[in-house]
Amino acid sequence: MYAIGIDIGGTNTDIGLVNPQGEVVARKNLPTGQYTDANQYADDLANTIKALIDEQKVEVKGIGIGAPNGNFYTGCIENAPNLNMKGNIYLAKMMEERLHIPAVITNDANAAAYGEMVYGGAKGMKHFIMFTLGTGVGSGIIIDGKLLYGHDGFAGELGHTIIFPNGRPCKCGRQGCLEQYTSAGGIRKTCLEMMEQDPYYDGILSKIPAEELDSKAIGDAANQGDILALRVFEFTGGILGLAMANAVAFSSPEAIFLMGGPVKAGEVLLEPVRKSFNLNVLSNYKDKVKIMVSQLKQNDVAILGAAALVN
Amino acid sequence: MYAIGIDIGGTNTDIGLVNPQGEVVARKNLPTGQYTDANQYADDLANTIKALIDEQKVEVKGIGIGAPNGNFYTGCIENAPNLNMKGNIYLAKMMEERLHIPAVITNDANAAAYGEMVYGGAKGMKHFIMFTLGTGVGSGIIIDGKLLYGHDGFAGELGHTIIFPNGRPCKCGRQGCLEQYTSAGGIRKTCLEMMEQDPYYDGILSKIPAEELDSKAIGDAANQGDILALRVFEFTGGILGLAMANAVAFSSPEAIFLMGGPVKAGEVLLEPVRKSFNLNVLSNYKDKVKIMVSQLKQNDVAILGAAALVN
Repeated sequence: MYAIGIDIGGTNTDIGLVNPQGEVVARKNLPTGQYTDANQYADDLANTIKALIDEQKVEVKGIGIGAPNGNFYTGCIENAPNLNMKGNIYLAKMMEERLHIPAVITNDANAAAYGEMVYGGAKGMKHFIMFTLGTGVGSGIIIDGKLLYGHDGFAGELGHTIIFPNGRPCKCGRQGCLEQYTSAGGIRKTCLEMMEQDPYYDGILSKIPAEELDSKAIGDAANQGDILALRVFEFTGGILGLAMANAVAFSSPEAIFLMGGPVKAGEVLLEPVRKSFNLNVLSNYKDKVKIMVSQLKQNDVAILGAAALVN
Repeated sequence: MYAIGIDIGGTNTDIGLVNPQGEVVARKNLPTGQYTDANQYADDLANTIKALIDEQKVEVKGIGIGAPNGNFYTGCIENAPNLNMKGNIYLAKMMEERLHIPAVITNDANAAAYGEMVYGGAKGMKHFIMFTLGTGVGSGIIIDGKLLYGHDGFAGELGHTIIFPNGRPCKCGRQGCLEQYTSAGGIRKTCLEMMEQDPYYDGILSKIPAEELDSKAIGDAANQGDILALRVFEFTGGILGLAMANAVAFSSPEAIFLMGGPVKAGEVLLEPVRKSFNLNVLSNYKDKVKIMVSQLKQNDVAILGAAALVN
């Protein structure tokens, strides 16, 4: 039977209809960032799902939702720092009330990890970690072939491990979180800082208006050989590699997967990631951990993972 | 039936005979630090175990060993940075060959975590982390009521997560590991550094010869109100609290347990640990994680955990 998979990001909500073969056969989206009222969001989300189901004329057995701070145990999005909707949002229940279809919720990065395990490059792996780089930095951790939820449902918030005590202020209210350095916005911030420190820089990025200087533009410049852009990714990759090495000392995974916008920059990011990881990983783990890019289409992985949770 | 539980630390090896009620009824020890040859160590260990069994005139069903870098999957101590015996030591097999009793091995901190769950303050808990502070800093991680081993058997080396990039050099060959700040030796090092920076300090510790300045002496001084000693523990607790907060973002445990020599200092360490943890933990987890001291006798916990592994 069909399932609905939903990937809620800080900027966009992707809604997909997934067939029994694990393919996204139709999709719609909503601009998450524009909502401050959870009821309004739930209404629009339910109407969008309804439209998708009606258009495709199929029966749906369940709704799987991947959302920042989504708690599998409670079906609630709890105080997600990356959303403009604040407080506790019991979105699973809100969908069930509006659509009369069973709904489950998990962390968006958990959904991505689950999707990678069921459909992607982690097929058959029992221990791996997925880092999702986007508006925020999320992580989904697979232990013994299962998603790690921990005592209260919130395991796997590696984007909010503190890498630099007293570092950059984070939306979560603390300082120096991994997210502040390796999210799309973190990469942009690093770039702006480096440009400020280098007033004589007149490369590709100096021609781009500051407000358009996003991680994609910086990635493109790096791939054209721009030295400042390459330094931005060297710094970013260095920090990510260190965080990955520390994560490996926790769960000793077979692989670490990366996905999200900044990962599309390719080797300009991955090469410094590998270099830093090898430098910073404890010798016990050396040459044992594969560093991989998600092998699913980025727009599909979290939708597929969320839909797979319905089973 | 009886079991042998062995706790191998960098300095000492404690060998205990454990009765079916989970009590250590007899014990012996060996000075681990004095061995550089693994065969010699295995011979002496086997002879000590044999003497213990013969003296007590009991039948033993198995030997459980907790050792630094002990790999449950392979029965091997692999390149333990805290031992003077180098390389791979297949100690489980070496014991089975010498004694004809089945032997299993795990990380010493894993054994302590397991002991805490079976016999101590973590009874009934499904998700917790044990930090062991001693010659090194170890950790044992319980996920869903089971020890976390990961892909290759080496999960849970939180003492070797990097807290300060480019920080103090570590025996493992890298820099800035948690162990270098929160082990007994790390605390001593912090103290010596602070004394060097403060030439006018004339408190309790200034009367102790440098070679006798260990974490116990510093703990005693702190408990007598010595301000420099208190600062040492504030610094140590601050770092440990941060590391604990980062660990919580990984596995979202119900509790974190602490054990080992430096923990005996009591509130002078625990108060700054709690302060730093509360300051550094992501709001999702705030007021959800218990910070506890091991409720088993320190000399028993790893022995009991190792022996329990035999079951």
